[in-house]
Formats: sequence, structure tokens, C-alpha cells
Amino acid sequence: MQTTDMETSAQARVPFQPIEGGITAPHGFRAAAISCGIKNPEATRLDLALIVSDTPAITDAVFTTNKVRAACVRVSQQHVKAGEARAIIANSGNANACTGPQGIQDAKAMCKAAAEALGVRMRDVLVCSTGIIGMNMPIQRILPRVAELAEKLNPEGNDDAARAIMTSDTKPKSYAIEVPLPSGASFRIGGIAKGAGMICPNMATMLSFITTDAKVSKDELRRAMRFAVDQSFNRITIDGDTSTNDTVIVMSNGQADAPAIKKGSPEADLFRRALQKVMMELAKMIVSDGERVTKFVEIRVLHARTQADAKKAAEAVAKSLLVKCSFHGSDPNWGRIIHAVGYSGARIKEELIDIYFNGLIACSGGLTSKTPVTDLEKVVKEPRFTVTIDLNTGTASHNVFTTDLSEAYVDFNSSEYSAAIHAKRQKGLT
Amino acid sequence: MQTTDMETSAQARVPFQPIEGGITAPHGFRAAAISCGIKNPEATRLDLALIVSDTPAITDAVFTTNKVRAACVRVSQQHVKAGEARAIIANSGNANACTGPQGIQDAKAMCKAAAEALGVRMRDVLVCSTGIIGMNMPIQRILPRVAELAEKLNPEGNDDAARAIMTSDTKPKSYAIEVPLPSGASFRIGGIAKGAGMICPNMATMLSFITTDAKVSKDELRRAMRFAVDQSFNRITIDGDTSTNDTVIVMSNGQADAPAIKKGSPEADLFRRALQKVMMELAKMIVSDGERVTKFVEIRVLHARTQADAKKAAEAVAKSLLVKCSFHGSDPNWGRIIHAVGYSGARIKEELIDIYFNGLIACSGGLTSKTPVTDLEKVVKEPRFTVTIDLNTGTASHNVFTTDLSEAYVDFNSSEYSAAIHAKRQKGLT
Repeated sequence: MQTTDMETSAQARVPFQPIEGGITAPHGFRAAAISCGIKNPEATRLDLALIVSDTPAITDAVFTTNKVRAACVRVSQQHVKAGEARAIIANSGNANACTGPQGIQDAKAMCKAAAEALGVRMRDVLVCSTGIIGMNMPIQRILPRVAELAEKLNPEGNDDAARAIMTSDTKPKSYAIEVPLPSGASFRIGGIAKGAGMICPNMATMLSFITTDAKVSKDELRRAMRFAVDQSFNRITIDGDTSTNDTVIVMSNGQADAPAIKKGSPEADLFRRALQKVMMELAKMIVSDGERVTKFVEIRVLHARTQADAKKAAEAVAKSLLVKCSFHGSDPNWGRIIHAVGYSGARIKEELIDIYFNGLIACSGGLTSKTPVTDLEKVVKEPRFTVTIDLNTGTASHNVFTTDLSEAYVDFNSSEYSAAIHAKRQKGLT
Repeated sequence: MQTTDMETSAQARVPFQPIEGGITAPHGFRAAAISCGIKNPEATRLDLALIVSDTPAITDAVFTTNKVRAACVRVSQQHVKAGEARAIIANSGNANACTGPQGIQDAKAMCKAAAEALGVRMRDVLVCSTGIIGMNMPIQRILPRVAELAEKLNPEGNDDAARAIMTSDTKPKSYAIEVPLPSGASFRIGGIAKGAGMICPNMATMLSFITTDAKVSKDELRRAMRFAVDQSFNRITIDGDTSTNDTVIVMSNGQADAPAIKKGSPEADLFRRALQKVMMELAKMIVSDGERVTKFVEIRVLHARTQADAKKAAEAVAKSLLVKCSFHGSDPNWGRIIHAVGYSGARIKEELIDIYFNGLIACSGGLTSKTPVTDLEKVVKEPRFTVTIDLNTGTASHNVFTTDLSEAYVDFNSSEYSAAIHAKRQKGLT
């Protein structure tokens, strides 16, 4: 069994310095948030955020693969094509999904209002929404407030922005690092995220906005972003299983006092891994803050025949209801794990499979091990542990982060739509 | 929207007569069950069943597609190759899965003991197990009791047999019909089933044993069985998502006082639909009795581009945790339904999708309909309702039966393995 933590060893080589400030930690970025009454009619919760680069920023984005795409996703996909942007306007409380032509009009109106307030072009603004599906945006409560929002922009606006994109998240998520270069110069990368919408993070509406002052080319940003997303957010995501609104945006304004990063240079590699580090920290925060989650579990598949086999096996285990239930009950039920591996589609030999809870072997060669169940229970009683599934058939590996499934989750998710409709009606909003 | 219930119209054409007796209703079949203390050490619950045809029966079976296959599945797959059998021995309480060479030896020993007690060949006996994975069979408590079990065989043994294969099922499941032929003769088909293991029936260990006294050829039985399974048990199953033990067996002993069924005849068609009817009734019982289930919901996808698209969309909705949570809370949350359709992989146009709760339209052309939410709520408050998703892009359709997801399910499934191990230890069985 291979026990090296690849992420840890990568970190060990690179002295990333965690710093304060999140998305506004990199030079030349400001943020702000206000409450427009989208999330609650009393307008006591922040629900509209604006993030701005003082200079044009090279920008790339990854959007949901769901065929039902929110209006904001459609509009942002158009705007990001230019490869450069100045601002992101984002709201919570309403997803602007399944809202037809009116939704597109509303998403464009949000971009236009932000562009006017900032004195930039409409296509320089990206727009994101998260919240309930199938209701029109309360746009009349948003547009008149955008100028005020723009006036509030400041280099300490990170916490408000992180809070304004929360839906069922219990805490704001932000992270930033400073990356010293051999030359003595440095650059910064910061970000905010929201997720937590659902039990399988893969089904959550996941938003993440990342800023950096590193000087990178469009191509290098694109390469680094695809790599980092695959190593982070995609480890908490089942392919094709994304929400209508999922969006990750990276803006790079080159304002750091450091030389341009050249293709293929050690700095380019450093940038890539630094971006991965920020995304991975945000991804872990999303999983840990999953709705009513009490356990954070890494599923690690080793020695699969191919990368695809490793991924199938890891994802099947990570999303199995029965496995997640057993995590919740601190039950070292390796039978449910091997069962999920069996139906995952991965090519396996049952009699070669070993399963470990942290370092303790529970299943050896497809059979129950001699480890006392009380020892295994001690592991799964912890709030964080790793399940390692060694297929012993090849050299490929993959890991996914998952959670338990709690009774409270079900309760929490059983009446969103009715509650929202009735709340609107009470306020005379329908 | 197409509202014809295809199953109902098929039934209307065929006067199947429901009769008592389940698996022993067809002529020449007997059954019995005893308690060996596999399910509980006090041996108060039936856990070993024997089903026997008095004469050699043409036999076919469909097994799990899980790559982790229980020992009993491996042994029965060998035995059924002959196309003829006399008996099924089945236990609950232990799945005999992930038990290695010892498991194979135990499964063979069960067949051998039954064969000896019945005076038939070992390969004439099929064996099925259901229960916990990864523990050796308490074979020493089973083998000495098989002769006693065989002595108890009788034509009224159906209810005991149905009870003995239950695990977390709350009630035994059996069904039988008499099928009158134009000639005035008739044949019978009966069956028992167990499921209920898990929230998504697709992940349950599903066993079903069907008997018939119709005179059918090996080929016709095979064709009819594949058709009927696809129309019934596979409608509550996601492809490839089966348990380590899933098994459906059909035995046909030709003891009815009716002529042989000829290939391509109206009687052959009748037999096929009668077999489908019995399997569908048993499949519905499995879904209705899912662990802690309070809702029974049919997901019907209409006008998909292809059959594959219809199936993908229906299954994605049927297995979505969030959709199931909203059913539990009687929440007509069509946004979660269209979200699942969007990530299903089915080819869709968002702006063409209509979604109905029973006859009431909730989503029209991808947008919220004008139906008052209180009317929609009335539908989803019912214990049974249908969700119809009209994709409006083609002519293919598919339906799947599903359930809600309750808090009690999670609680119930959170400590199986530890509890079983500790129970064994208390009894000095480890």
C-alpha cells in the first residue's frame, strides 16, 4: 500500500505562505457586498457582491456541464470569450435558472448596471447567481443598488463578498497565499467559494472566484486553470453531475511587482501548483461545510489498471448512499465499499482488493481482515479519515473527497420550493 | 402530453386472474422454511427456505452485473447452465459475499445437502443468499437442518418461504395469477421476492423466484424472461448498479393441464405478458416496501430522442437525492427535477421541457407554470403519484419507479456492520 500523500509532498517543496485578505489579497483587486433582499425579504443578509480589478485582467472560466444552464452562465460564457474582464457581479438567493428570455435580460441588466457604475464595457463584467431554480430574479430590487455597491468597493471587501455568495453554507470560504519567487519577488493568489448546497458536493451549486496579481499569459492561465480545477474542484465533482450554475472564474491582473511568468519556466510550474493549492483549500472547505455534514472522508483508489478505472471506483464509493450512511454511523462497513467498487464499472479482481481505514486493513484480498472491529471503529469515529482501496491491478490512482449523509440533511432538503413560494406569497411578491 | 398507461391497457386486454398461493400456486411446486439462527441467534425468525419442483423444471436465471459476486451467485451460475433444475435453497441474514474459497465451499455444501435430502443431483439445486457482506456463513447451523427442511415441504409453503428470504423488508412479497387460454385450459405463474435493502432499490439485494406450470420451451422461457425482467425489475434498477447477490430465477415444470406453448403463437405472447405481470407486481412491492419509504413515485419520461435518452433522464431523476428529499417533504420542486434531467446525459432542449405532477403542469417550456403551488402540493402530499417529464424532442419513452428519502432511512443504515460484529461477539460466534 502506497501511503505517500502526494499533495503534502508537493506542498513540502513549495513554501506557499498563507495570508489574509482572500480575493482582495492580490494587488489591484477590490470587493464589496450589500443586502438587496433577495435572500430574505427583510434584507438583513448580504446577497449581492461585486469584485473588481482596477486594471483589465486576463480572465478564464469553467462552467457547468449541465445541459440546463442558468441565464447568468449563458451570459458569462459570452462575455468571457474576450479573455479579459474587469468585474464579477454575483448574487445569492436566486439562481436565475429556468427563467427563459426574462432571465437572460436580467443577467445582462446586472452586467450593464455594474459596467455603468464602474465605467467599463458591459462585456467586461461576468455575472453569477446561486439559489432557488425556476423563479424570476427580483431585478427591481437589484439594479437601483448597484451604484451604491460600486461605491463601497475596497481592498478589505473580501469577507463581505465571501458572505454574500453563501446559500446554505454555514461559513464564508476564502483563502489566499503569497508565493515567493527565487528572484526575491512574489505574487499572490486569493479566492472565495460557496458550495454546501447538497450532500454530494457534486450536486451543489459551486461558485469560486479566484484573483491573482501574477503576470501570466492567456495560454498559461488557461493551462494552469484546467490543471488546478481537475486536481481540486473536480475531485469533489462527479463528471456530468454538475448543477445548473456551477462556475469557477480566475482573473489575473499582473499587478504584482514580479517579472512575467514564462511558458515552461519553473515559475510557470510554481504558478500552476499555487493555483491548485488555493483551489484545493477552497474545495476542502466546500466539502467540510456540506449541508449538515459531520465527517470529511478522503476516498483514495490505488493501483487501478487505468486512470479511468481509478476514477470510476473512487467516485462510486464517494457517492454511495449506503457508504455515506455508514460513515455517519461510524460503521467500518467495508462490504458496502467493495459493493460500490463492484458496480462502479472499474475493471477489478475481487480477490485482489485491499481496503484500509487510515492505516488499518479492513479487507484483505477481498476477504475480511483480522483487524479487530473495535480498532476500525476508532478510525471511523474520527471526524476526518481516509479510506484507501488498493485494487492491486495496475499503477493508476485517484482520490475524491466526500462526506457522510446525516438525517438532518434529509430534513433540511425536503421543502425548499414550497417554503420559498409561500414566503414570496406572504410578502406579496408573487 | 401522452397520458395512456401502457401497462393498464395491456392488462385490460388480458384477463389475468390473481390467485392465492404465490410460488406454490402453480401445480407441482412445494416450499418450506425454517429458522436456523442465521438472522438472529435466538432462531426466532425464518431464514432458510427451500422451493422444489416435483418434476424437472426448465430453469433460467438472471444474475447481478456487479463485478463483486457472491459465492452463491457463482455456484448458481454454474448449475443453471444445464437449463434444468429441481430446487432453490435460499437463506437470509448472510450474503455469502466476499467470503472467498470458503464461501464457494459453503454454497456448494448447501446445494449438496438439499440434493441429498431430495434425492436429486447437486447441480439440480440453485442457491441464493442475502444479508451482510464479508462474513463467513454459519454453515454448521444450516447443514444439519436441511433434511428437516425438506420434510416440511408442502403445497402451502409459500408464505413461509416468502418470509424466510426477507432482510429489512417489512412484509413478505408474493403474487400469483391464473391465465385462462382460449382453449379453456389455463396455466399459473407465481412468485416471491425480497428487496427493500436500500433506498434506491437499484442498490438493494433483490431476489425473486418465479414458478410456472406452463409448458414452455427453454428458448421461449429465456425470451419471455428477458422481456419481463426488462419491463419490471429493470425499471427499479439502474444499469450496472446492482448488488453482489441480485438474482431472478424462473422454473417451469409444465405440469399445467394445458397444451405446450408454441413459438410465435398468441399463447406465447400471453405467457410473456403474464410473466411480466407477475414480475411487475413483485417489483412494485419491492419499491413500496423500500426501507422507511413513505412515497411511491413513477417517473415517466416522454418524447425523448431515443430510448437511451429516455432511460438516462428517467433514471437520473429517480435516483437524485435532492429529488427524493423533496418527495419526502411533499415539495413540488420541479427545479430539482429539471436539474437532474440536465446532468443525466440525455439530449434535451431546456426550453421544450414540460414537467407534470400527475396531470398538473408545474414547468412549461422550461419555465414555471401558472399552476398554483398549493394545487401541486396536493399531488405530492399523496403517498403515490406520477412525475411526467415531456422532453418534446422525439418519440421514445421510459418509466422508472422510485421512492422518497427519509431521515429514518439514514438512521437505519448507519451501523449495520458494527452491530452485526458486536452481536456475533456477544454470542461468542467470532
